[in-house]
Amino acid sequence: LDYALLVAAFMQDHAQHGWPRQRMLHECLRAAIRNGTLAAGTRLVATRALAAELDLARNTVLYAYEQLACEGFVVSDRRGTVVAGAAADVAAGGSDAVGDSGTAAVPVRALARRARNLRVVPGPADMMGAFVPGVPALDMFPMALWRRLLDRAWRGLGPAQLNYGDQAGEPALRQAIAGHLRASRGVLCDASQVFITDGTQSSLDLCARAFADNGDTVWIEDPGYAGALAAFRGAGLRVEGIPVDGQGIALTAQHSRRRKPALIYVTPSHQYPVGSVLTLERRLALIARARADGALIIEDDYDSEFRHDGPPLSAMQGLAPDAPVLYLGTFSKTMFPALRIGFLVVPTGLAGPLAAMRAQSASRGRVAEQLALADFLHSGQFALHLRRMRRLYRQRRDVLVASLQEHLGAIAEVHGESAGMHLALRFTDDRLRDAEISARLMEEGIVAHALSAHGTAGSRPARSKWNGLMLGYAQIPAELIDGLVRRLAAVVHLAAYAARSAGHRLPPARL
Amino acid sequence: LDYALLVAAFMQDHAQHGWPRQRMLHECLRAAIRNGTLAAGTRLVATRALAAELDLARNTVLYAYEQLACEGFVVSDRRGTVVAGAAADVAAGGSDAVGDSGTAAVPVRALARRARNLRVVPGPADMMGAFVPGVPALDMFPMALWRRLLDRAWRGLGPAQLNYGDQAGEPALRQAIAGHLRASRGVLCDASQVFITDGTQSSLDLCARAFADNGDTVWIEDPGYAGALAAFRGAGLRVEGIPVDGQGIALTAQHSRRRKPALIYVTPSHQYPVGSVLTLERRLALIARARADGALIIEDDYDSEFRHDGPPLSAMQGLAPDAPVLYLGTFSKTMFPALRIGFLVVPTGLAGPLAAMRAQSASRGRVAEQLALADFLHSGQFALHLRRMRRLYRQRRDVLVASLQEHLGAIAEVHGESAGMHLALRFTDDRLRDAEISARLMEEGIVAHALSAHGTAGSRPARSKWNGLMLGYAQIPAELIDGLVRRLAAVVHLAAYAARSAGHRLPPARL
Repeated sequence: LDYALLVAAFMQDHAQHGWPRQRMLHECLRAAIRNGTLAAGTRLVATRALAAELDLARNTVLYAYEQLACEGFVVSDRRGTVVAGAAADVAAGGSDAVGDSGTAAVPVRALARRARNLRVVPGPADMMGAFVPGVPALDMFPMALWRRLLDRAWRGLGPAQLNYGDQAGEPALRQAIAGHLRASRGVLCDASQVFITDGTQSSLDLCARAFADNGDTVWIEDPGYAGALAAFRGAGLRVEGIPVDGQGIALTAQHSRRRKPALIYVTPSHQYPVGSVLTLERRLALIARARADGALIIEDDYDSEFRHDGPPLSAMQGLAPDAPVLYLGTFSKTMFPALRIGFLVVPTGLAGPLAAMRAQSASRGRVAEQLALADFLHSGQFALHLRRMRRLYRQRRDVLVASLQEHLGAIAEVHGESAGMHLALRFTDDRLRDAEISARLMEEGIVAHALSAHGTAGSRPARSKWNGLMLGYAQIPAELIDGLVRRLAAVVHLAAYAARSAGHRLPPARL
Repeated sequence: LDYALLVAAFMQDHAQHGWPRQRMLHECLRAAIRNGTLAAGTRLVATRALAAELDLARNTVLYAYEQLACEGFVVSDRRGTVVAGAAADVAAGGSDAVGDSGTAAVPVRALARRARNLRVVPGPADMMGAFVPGVPALDMFPMALWRRLLDRAWRGLGPAQLNYGDQAGEPALRQAIAGHLRASRGVLCDASQVFITDGTQSSLDLCARAFADNGDTVWIEDPGYAGALAAFRGAGLRVEGIPVDGQGIALTAQHSRRRKPALIYVTPSHQYPVGSVLTLERRLALIARARADGALIIEDDYDSEFRHDGPPLSAMQGLAPDAPVLYLGTFSKTMFPALRIGFLVVPTGLAGPLAAMRAQSASRGRVAEQLALADFLHSGQFALHLRRMRRLYRQRRDVLVASLQEHLGAIAEVHGESAGMHLALRFTDDRLRDAEISARLMEEGIVAHALSAHGTAGSRPARSKWNGLMLGYAQIPAELIDGLVRRLAAVVHLAAYAARSAGHRLPPARL
């Protein structure tokens, strides 16, 4: 057997891989064993000789032989290296079955249908800067304090706490969260109803899979939160978008005649993306509707900690004892996103079944992080941090609203500014196209999601009244806001000018 | 207030729950507070008196009062326990707003069908001690070193790293993992194919949902890993159990005539639970089969780092370029379970689509933990820890095997001891019933899963040849093993004696 020829032929076929030499030799010999060129029982040439023949370092050859031995293709005896019996037999049988397997790549199988359904909203949330929504003022987070708490938690751990943790989360954290929610959000719960998750996306996933079956219907706000849409579609649910107006999700008589939902997803404290606050009247009506339909409401209270004007509305969950509500919260906004800790509060009757389900499927551990967070809550540091952030965000909001009114008041109005970390800028001039403007802004380095990109109604949506931009402000220093709004306003005014110019757009060069 | 009457009425309404007494009393009092029967400011009767009145142990009453205090429904003062103001206010207000909501509980809606499918294997993995499988020697983990690395990682973070992280995981960790897998497992990959997950359960979830649709078929080893079964059923897949023999999963001609699988789940390095090592011949045949059927193999390589005898077999993923394999690994066994970091290696063509899907749905963050782990790998500490654990586990295995042979050699044989952290003790006497023996052992405080409890074939399984116990040994000090095996052997021999005694069991008192 001419090894040099063998290797040369193989290299020609596989040059595109750019493999290191040892890998190339290993692959080459393996292919030769598989296709029978090197038959069972064949003694491979000695490593030193092959190295000389191929002009390779001996270690390169040794490495390739060792790999083959690891994989069972060759065996070593005192005199050297021999092609194994089993491997060659299989190779002979196998190569018939799969053809030229050396070159047969994985059939480029797309994702499953349900995974393809996960639409990604442009402008990912992992960006920072103006006006990415949902990102808190990370530079104001008390890192040094957090590190100390974390280190203290780690020091207190025994070996048993390195093991799989409680299926619902650390009891200390669940109690701290229950206490916080009762006191600040009017949630009626005890620690046994609280489940720790990796964040809102995990909570949504869990709700969709634990409380609805493939093909069940879920109602979601339209426009609405893309992450929820992704979770529901991924879980095989039939998604129905319900229009949102200035008072939140607006059920009509029409919706009652359709299929009963298993789940109803809402963001009542500060609607995502338009910022409406769901009125008490509608909250109670929604609870009544859910009871009548045997549905569960998913109350995503993500922005509730930041209420800028007026008294806070307490959570829907607490409006009635045993309300049919799955209450979702997260520390991604109040602490920081990379923490990956959120929670889910379920009605008492569902806590047992959910715990049983999670025993098999949950991500159970991260004890130190949970204990440090419990400590952060108990010590009052969390409340202190929240107060500081509320003050800061309110300040930033005030500056942003004033600036938007000054520079864009004529063709847009501010909506949903009373709470949260973002507001909606709604165009009052219908000829403006928010998606086009959002794309232009992205070119300028300004992230401003188009409200129309958050449609959830499916393939034939009615023209939404929500034509405008979603502007996150929590992370933007007040002194930068006016400058950013001027840049944003320039793009919007340009688009408005173009729209007014008899339907045809002027080329940018002339302006 | 007649507490006896109150409790009797409540028990009548809730008899079907089968709650323990303390829970029943707790629920009863809570309901009474919520519906106003026990108004704000009401002083509860003293625990001793109530215990006497209801003929309960005083501890039962104390427990119920403590739970109520935890939940904020009552407060303690020097003289005893009083119904809290806030709790009752909410209850009163709430009941006006929504009608007679005090009694309208959430309709006791069971979990969704797919969630009910998640069967839990008795003897949860969060236990420690003999012979819980899958738990490493946590007391040998270098905690102080890990704390230092973690703290160093935290100190190096800027505010931007508190934000949502990379959808596939931290690049540094993905590179470190790819390097480790190439060198020690023969996996053909680069960092772009590696995705960080929260552990094997997350990886399985992701595979089931990204690469199969509701109703698709998955092949799984029988007996097999309950966590995988749960993930697949939870994702709506049609599960088909394929028998396992001493050489791993054993496909027959019969299986080729059935529905083509979308996924094939195997644990080739050390089959869970019986410990077989999949032969090279079968590995190649399985790859050929997957290619022919357009299926993806999920190779769960969970126990591969601990090979006690003979040369390691390299991963299936590396047996052929672009093998149709999703390779799963975890740090739960090599580091510690509470870490919650695992990984998934996908074929090159699938990395892009999966990243796009994860952009919306992944748990993205935990940067410090990932960087600390990358550091642990790069610095060589991981390899060092692995070497130490390999030596330790091998020692423990040797002691266990010797002890089992001495005390149970006559009626059982050891299987699957060449790798991993557990072995299978297979009963050679067919009259022994592993499930009964496992239950008896549990009463004795010894966790030894019955092999028959890991059946995956569905509702009409053939009588499995795997009748025996799964014994994890990684966390048991060598000097304790013989004593534990003696206790275990006593139970097994007793069962064998009973089985031989003409089919009827002697009452324990006579033995």
